[in-house]
Amino acid sequence: MPKHHRKVKKYVQKKAFTSPGTLAYVGKEVPIDTVVKLVEFNEEMYQQKIVRVMSECHPDFNENHTNWLDVDGVHEVSIIESIGKHYHLHPLLLEDVLNTEQKPKLEHFGEHNIFVIMKMLQYNELINEIESEHVGLVLGKNYVISFQEVHKSDVFGAIFERLKASVGKTRKGKADYLFYSLCDLVIDNYYVVIEKFSEKLEELEIKIIENPHPNDQTLLYELRRSLMQIRKAILPLRDIFGALTREDSQLIQPSTNIYLRDVYDHVLQTLETIESYREMIENIQNIYLTSLSNKMNSVMKTLTVFTAIFMPLTFIAGVYGMNFENMPELRNPHGYFYTLGSMVIIGIVFWVYFKWKKYV
Amino acid sequence: MPKHHRKVKKYVQKKAFTSPGTLAYVGKEVPIDTVVKLVEFNEEMYQQKIVRVMSECHPDFNENHTNWLDVDGVHEVSIIESIGKHYHLHPLLLEDVLNTEQKPKLEHFGEHNIFVIMKMLQYNELINEIESEHVGLVLGKNYVISFQEVHKSDVFGAIFERLKASVGKTRKGKADYLFYSLCDLVIDNYYVVIEKFSEKLEELEIKIIENPHPNDQTLLYELRRSLMQIRKAILPLRDIFGALTREDSQLIQPSTNIYLRDVYDHVLQTLETIESYREMIENIQNIYLTSLSNKMNSVMKTLTVFTAIFMPLTFIAGVYGMNFENMPELRNPHGYFYTLGSMVIIGIVFWVYFKWKKYV
Amino acid sequence: MPKHHRKVKKYVQKKAFTSPGTLAYVGKEVPIDTVVKLVEFNEEMYQQKIVRVMSECHPDFNENHTNWLDVDGVHEVSIIESIGKHYHLHPLLLEDVLNTEQKPKLEHFGEHNIFVIMKMLQYNELINEIESEHVGLVLGKNYVISFQEVHKSDVFGAIFERLKASVGKTRKGKADYLFYSLCDLVIDNYYVVIEKFSEKLEELEIKIIENPHPNDQTLLYELRRSLMQIRKAILPLRDIFGALTREDSQLIQPSTNIYLRDVYDHVLQTLETIESYREMIENIQNIYLTSLSNKMNSVMKTLTVFTAIFMPLTFIAGVYGMNFENMPELRNPHGYFYTLGSMVIIGIVFWVYFKWKKYV
Amino acid sequence: MPKHHRKVKKYVQKKAFTSPGTLAYVGKEVPIDTVVKLVEFNEEMYQQKIVRVMSECHPDFNENHTNWLDVDGVHEVSIIESIGKHYHLHPLLLEDVLNTEQKPKLEHFGEHNIFVIMKMLQYNELINEIESEHVGLVLGKNYVISFQEVHKSDVFGAIFERLKASVGKTRKGKADYLFYSLCDLVIDNYYVVIEKFSEKLEELEIKIIENPHPNDQTLLYELRRSLMQIRKAILPLRDIFGALTREDSQLIQPSTNIYLRDVYDHVLQTLETIESYREMIENIQNIYLTSLSNKMNSVMKTLTVFTAIFMPLTFIAGVYGMNFENMPELRNPHGYFYTLGSMVIIGIVFWVYFKWKKYV
Amino acid sequence: MPKHHRKVKKYVQKKAFTSPGTLAYVGKEVPIDTVVKLVEFNEEMYQQKIVRVMSECHPDFNENHTNWLDVDGVHEVSIIESIGKHYHLHPLLLEDVLNTEQKPKLEHFGEHNIFVIMKMLQYNELINEIESEHVGLVLGKNYVISFQEVHKSDVFGAIFERLKASVGKTRKGKADYLFYSLCDLVIDNYYVVIEKFSEKLEELEIKIIENPHPNDQTLLYELRRSLMQIRKAILPLRDIFGALTREDSQLIQPSTNIYLRDVYDHVLQTLETIESYREMIENIQNIYLTSLSNKMNSVMKTLTVFTAIFMPLTFIAGVYGMNFENMPELRNPHGYFYTLGSMVIIGIVFWVYFKWKKYV
Ligand SMILES: [Mg+2]
Ligand SMILES: [Mg+2]
Ligand SMILES: [Mg+2]
Ligand SMILES: [Mg+2]
Ligand SMILES: [Mg+2]
Ligand SMILES: [Mg+2]
Ligand SMILES: [Mg+2]
Ligand SMILES: [Mg+2]
Ligand SMILES: [Mg+2]
Ligand SMILES: [Mg+2]
Ligand SMILES: [Mg+2]
Ligand SMILES: [Mg+2]
Ligand SMILES: [Mg+2]
Ligand SMILES: [Mg+2]
Ligand SMILES: [Mg+2]
Ligand SMILES: [Mg+2]
Ligand SMILES: [Mg+2]
Ligand SMILES: [Mg+2]
Ligand SMILES: [Mg+2]
Ligand SMILES: [Mg+2]
Ligand SMILES: [Mg+2]
Ligand SMILES: [Mg+2]
Ligand SMILES: [Mg+2]
Ligand SMILES: [Mg+2]
Ligand SMILES: [Mg+2]
Ligand SMILES: [Mg+2]
Ligand SMILES: [Mg+2]
Ligand SMILES: [Mg+2]
Ligand SMILES: [Mg+2]
Ligand SMILES: [Mg+2]
Ligand SMILES: [Mg+2]
Repeated sequence: MPKHHRKVKKYVQKKAFTSPGTLAYVGKEVPIDTVVKLVEFNEEMYQQKIVRVMSECHPDFNENHTNWLDVDGVHEVSIIESIGKHYHLHPLLLEDVLNTEQKPKLEHFGEHNIFVIMKMLQYNELINEIESEHVGLVLGKNYVISFQEVHKSDVFGAIFERLKASVGKTRKGKADYLFYSLCDLVIDNYYVVIEKFSEKLEELEIKIIENPHPNDQTLLYELRRSLMQIRKAILPLRDIFGALTREDSQLIQPSTNIYLRDVYDHVLQTLETIESYREMIENIQNIYLTSLSNKMNSVMKTLTVFTAIFMPLTFIAGVYGMNFENMPELRNPHGYFYTLGSMVIIGIVFWVYFKWKKYV
Repeated sequence: MPKHHRKVKKYVQKKAFTSPGTLAYVGKEVPIDTVVKLVEFNEEMYQQKIVRVMSECHPDFNENHTNWLDVDGVHEVSIIESIGKHYHLHPLLLEDVLNTEQKPKLEHFGEHNIFVIMKMLQYNELINEIESEHVGLVLGKNYVISFQEVHKSDVFGAIFERLKASVGKTRKGKADYLFYSLCDLVIDNYYVVIEKFSEKLEELEIKIIENPHPNDQTLLYELRRSLMQIRKAILPLRDIFGALTREDSQLIQPSTNIYLRDVYDHVLQTLETIESYREMIENIQNIYLTSLSNKMNSVMKTLTVFTAIFMPLTFIAGVYGMNFENMPELRNPHGYFYTLGSMVIIGIVFWVYFKWKKYV
Repeated sequence: MPKHHRKVKKYVQKKAFTSPGTLAYVGKEVPIDTVVKLVEFNEEMYQQKIVRVMSECHPDFNENHTNWLDVDGVHEVSIIESIGKHYHLHPLLLEDVLNTEQKPKLEHFGEHNIFVIMKMLQYNELINEIESEHVGLVLGKNYVISFQEVHKSDVFGAIFERLKASVGKTRKGKADYLFYSLCDLVIDNYYVVIEKFSEKLEELEIKIIENPHPNDQTLLYELRRSLMQIRKAILPLRDIFGALTREDSQLIQPSTNIYLRDVYDHVLQTLETIESYREMIENIQNIYLTSLSNKMNSVMKTLTVFTAIFMPLTFIAGVYGMNFENMPELRNPHGYFYTLGSMVIIGIVFWVYFKWKKYV
Repeated sequence: MPKHHRKVKKYVQKKAFTSPGTLAYVGKEVPIDTVVKLVEFNEEMYQQKIVRVMSECHPDFNENHTNWLDVDGVHEVSIIESIGKHYHLHPLLLEDVLNTEQKPKLEHFGEHNIFVIMKMLQYNELINEIESEHVGLVLGKNYVISFQEVHKSDVFGAIFERLKASVGKTRKGKADYLFYSLCDLVIDNYYVVIEKFSEKLEELEIKIIENPHPNDQTLLYELRRSLMQIRKAILPLRDIFGALTREDSQLIQPSTNIYLRDVYDHVLQTLETIESYREMIENIQNIYLTSLSNKMNSVMKTLTVFTAIFMPLTFIAGVYGMNFENMPELRNPHGYFYTLGSMVIIGIVFWVYFKWKKYV
Repeated sequence: MPKHHRKVKKYVQKKAFTSPGTLAYVGKEVPIDTVVKLVEFNEEMYQQKIVRVMSECHPDFNENHTNWLDVDGVHEVSIIESIGKHYHLHPLLLEDVLNTEQKPKLEHFGEHNIFVIMKMLQYNELINEIESEHVGLVLGKNYVISFQEVHKSDVFGAIFERLKASVGKTRKGKADYLFYSLCDLVIDNYYVVIEKFSEKLEELEIKIIENPHPNDQTLLYELRRSLMQIRKAILPLRDIFGALTREDSQLIQPSTNIYLRDVYDHVLQTLETIESYREMIENIQNIYLTSLSNKMNSVMKTLTVFTAIFMPLTFIAGVYGMNFENMPELRNPHGYFYTLGSMVIIGIVFWVYFKWKKYV
């Protein structure tokens, strides 16, 4: 929590009240250099190089190839700025690339660019928290520029492999199909995160139904927070891919449309799963609360049975413990045994009564 | 629960990060072979055969008949793939046919195919759970291809019978009417499942109103889960059949439209029933919780009555049990009886008081 | 409840998996014969006859009159079928007429017929339940066909009277105005049912606010069920009359439109009343639960006061009841009276303390 | 409540099942005569007279003036009927004018009339209830007819004053501006009622936060009912003035449009205020319930502390009150004092323990 | 609270029932004079002056410059009125500028003016409350008029600085870009307020999870109120900037559109953050309530354990404290020690039993 808090403060300090389009990175500090890779490919060839200065790249990219500029790290403002200048990207687009607090969005910059912000999610088993990585994708006529935060695992590695190996349709496709493939990868990843989440939730569900513990309430609360975090990353994608599906931009070919619809369908599916987990959490919460009430009832019944049985008996013992000079029963040689017998009978009668009232 | 969990893991392992359109079955393992049946019929004739290799089938089907290719089992990827190739079905369509986790959906593949995914539901009385079967229907110009998971009972058996016996309009109808008949069958089945559900819910309702038990909370929770499962299968059909009703595809004749509207109407009706059961479950839950509070009140009143009556009496007995040398009452020959009398009177007074306060 | 349950089972047995348009009555068994009445009228004349065989009726009705065919009883499938054949009604229309489980709906059959299903509600004071009667209205060019379940009181009797007596606009109106008058009658009846409901709810409200009882929870639950039943009958009418109001069918004249809007307005008004009763029930439920908590608090305070006052006193009595040989206080001739005095003081101090803490 | 109840019954008795357009007053009985005033004015002149028979009024009103017919009292059916006939008002319009149970609505009668029903609200301090007055406004080409229930204070008095004094734009305006001014007055009044409401709510809020009392629950419930009553009067106005704002009727000039939008904006503002009070009531309810639980916890802790301290002590006293012949401690001359000392220590230990557990 | 209350009363007294367009200030009393500044600038020049009388300003502003009239203080009605007359602003616009209770809104006055009301929020650390400042912006062809309540810190100071220093795009932009910059500033400020809010909420969250206290309920309630206040200020901006984004007014150039979309996006982002805090508050509330129930359970278990262990023991002591003449055990020389032993065993048995039942 404090970590999250500090991040927001930084955002406010760096960004509020500055002139619009002022570029400032607001995410975590990163000690690694930004790596910019240029991939050029078509059905026949595939070629990949590390870009050191932007002048190495043709300002219009190579028209015979599909071009993919993959930027690994958004914390070096000057690099992002130079890429922006080289390819005439709008300052507001760059602002959103740098602002790792920016929620998912779709933006059109004239006829030239379609710009999408998404969140790549990862379950960190060590600290039991979901980590979110900021991803920006720019689709142009014959190119895709992808921006991502630096991370241990290169999330777009699978696409590099597919392109190199020429597996599937990816290599035959144009820039829009590459753009789709990158989106698809991010969304496929949500299934993995949701699966991890569902494992934890179902464990807790079984535990709470069988043997609830005061701590479980806090665990449930943390799961609910994680679920809300996942939901916040995915919910805006419904509108974004819904819009991309209905898009008639020249940047997206009709044949790619059915693939975007498939992504859209998967987004809906994950959202529905999230919704059902949400409802499940609510129901588990209710079960937990009811079991608390049930336990209370059971505790109170125990208390009542003990009190109701022993109070009258103790009273009787008290009566015969009084020191009046004239108490005829005390002189009766069997008085003690009669009294003990009455006590046993009274105890049994109450016991049976409470048994019948389902108190024991 | 663990079973469900394992299934999801399999799905993630098989599907995430593969190239789009990669075919992989993700459902339960099935030891039975896939059976492919081809039914050809028109108003005059009816003919049915088992298809062993796809080359036995004409790639455009028989133009004078209505053709129905019924595929029983979607676990053999190679068979599904060969059918897909033979009839030029889109890879994404086949992906959804194999993905038994895919939620209900409607997809158009150009002007050639309308594709619907539905869930056939069955109440398994043995394990008290609802079983869901994945059903895919492809409507073409003069054919319907139906895909279903292998199951003991052949769900489309009733249609075969009707076609053979030439009962009703089914035989006179074209492919769109057959398509409608299959949809209608799946939805008719929901009535059966909901009926089973309502039987169980109404049993539990009566039990909880008359004599609630801590276990009932868990039973109610399981019923709620079942209801949500049914709802998840039916809810998307509202949009699907709503869209089919407004469809002006050449694949659906105007005369079939009113029948699709009837299916749509039945979907709405089941959803409304589900909604009212949902509300009923919520209300039963409230009754259960309130009855817990009522019981608690009653237990506490019992405890209070016992305590409030016997505490003062025990105190009095304690007073006359003290060993002071000078306690005049003790020497009074009737002191004991006066004291006993006072105790009885005090007891009665408290009893009447609590009677009046509705504690007993 | 069991009765309702049996009805659903029958519906499932009779209807599921049959060929579409198969006619089957699914309501309660009725020992009375169906009565078919034909009313012909215009501004000048009024004529009414019992129809025994459909051939007695002209297949296009009398073009100079407004024709009303009133069918009392939908349990004799053969009669409904012969009417359907005689007037070329669609099999799905007849299916809905026979299916007393069918919810309210509006259906257009080409340009020829507007078909409406409604529910006539009646409060049965004897069993304290709302009874629902299935009503189907078919509007044609110069005729209305009305179908209703057989009932003791003829619901459309008021219209017959108005037509005979030539009261109001009914006799001057055409078929569409008659159709409106029948709808209006059904909806006017909802006011009566809601009034009965409100009487019962307000009684219960006063009782729960003044003196709640565990049983009231169940009564409230039953009222909630009744309200939901009323709502289920009326809610679909909002869409139905909303649509009829915007209708530009040739079957409805512009001058009738304002009357349909009035019906629509009354539907909205009843729905709003229902909504406010729903909210009221929820609030009463909250009051009930809070009063339970308040009572529990009061019970616990009583218990605590008794315990906290008498426990210390009993303890003191216990101390001087000990049998130590050397207990100086016991030998003090005023020890007993000092002790009694201290007890009284301690008791008063605690009493005042709890008085101050608002425990008593 | 009983009063409200009786009114509804009357409505049902008088109106249900009568022929549409049958006129019947359903409100409270009123002993005062209906007063009909005709006001004629334009920028130059202003003239007001009491109308005794409708023939005194020109059937098309005076074309050079703006005409305002103000009807004070809707309980004399014959007068309303004669006004309706004189100015050709639709029977359904008159029905709604007489039906004081009619909710707010907007109706167009051809191109001739715009008809609005509103509710004037007034807070009756004596019985602590909101009183609602039925107001109907008819806008014609050069006239406004206003209908209102008889009331002590003439609600439209402010407009008469403005017209006489020629203050503001009212006198320069045409019939549509007068119509707007009357609507504006009704809505301005809602601010007054909501202010009264907010005073009471904020008083109760402070009281419940500082020192909740069982009765407060009922007070809160009554405030919630009042708020719902206000909301019911205003909510339909959102749609009504939303529609009037988009109106392109010839009866409303473009220059009046911005004034209607201002009224619409004020309706939205009051609705939002109501919504926030609603949320506030819900939150206060939660605070109340939580404070009940907190109190219960505190009561139970008190009980537990007393029990846990005195039970062991009383037990020890009981042990040394036993009458065994051989109890060595009893013979110890300091036994009594050792025992008393132990008791004090045990008491202190428990007290410290419960202090540490925050029970005291 | 009382302060807020008084303000509303004033509003009602001043505004209700006055003629529409009557100008009256309804906010807090302000002892400072209104300051009117005129800023004229274009890419080349920048010039600022204090306006004392409106005649110093050209009624059409300077056509070669962008003109910004900044009005600091809306409490002097005569000044606002003279500005309104000088620039032909609609009386309803001026009414909304003066009405500090007016909620955010967008209004078009013909083709001449776009008018926006917003709320500038500030967190007052001293009284722990959010303060709201009323801001009105009028966009004309070549000018912006900004109205704001007098405040210690000049909120638009940052824009003056940017304009003077010619930083960013602000100076190159026309009136619409200045208008956008002012809106952007107000919305940037929401991030600051929400950050302050989130700090307080997360502190309270940690406290309640770790160690809840009855007071926390009230703190949570106050935070919820603050959040609702923030939400009320921002929610209407969603519609307002949504509409401005789709605007095709001549007053807004296409190139400014993407900047307005950025503001719109930031509004959505703050609203989503608010929504998630709202959900978080609800969840914390649930945690708080559950922890109350858990504590109650724990208290009751403690009570039950004490009662159930000491009641039987005290009873046994009571039995042997009875004064019967013939009680054989009393004469047994080891009777006392056997009894003590039994008591210890009984105590241990109960202790183990409750340990096993998780009561201790
Ligand atoms: Mg995928
Ligand atoms: Mg989101
Ligand atoms: Mg969210
Ligand atoms: Mg898919
Ligand atoms: Mg999918
Ligand atoms: Mg669901
Ligand atoms: Mg069916
Ligand atoms: Mg679904
Ligand atoms: Mg769902
Ligand atoms: Mg049907
Ligand atoms: Mg139906
Ligand atoms: Mg319902
Ligand atoms: Mg709930
Ligand atoms: Mg009516
Ligand atoms: Mg319904
Ligand atoms: Mg009406
Ligand atoms: Mg009405
Ligand atoms: Mg309402
Ligand atoms: Mg609630
Ligand atoms: Mg006003
Ligand atoms: Mg309403
Ligand atoms: Mg205004
Ligand atoms: Mg306003
Ligand atoms: Mg709101
Ligand atoms: Mg609000
Ligand atoms: Mg900004
Ligand atoms: Mg708002
Ligand atoms: Mg931005
Ligand atoms: Mg943003
Ligand atoms: Mg959310
Ligand atoms: Mg809740």
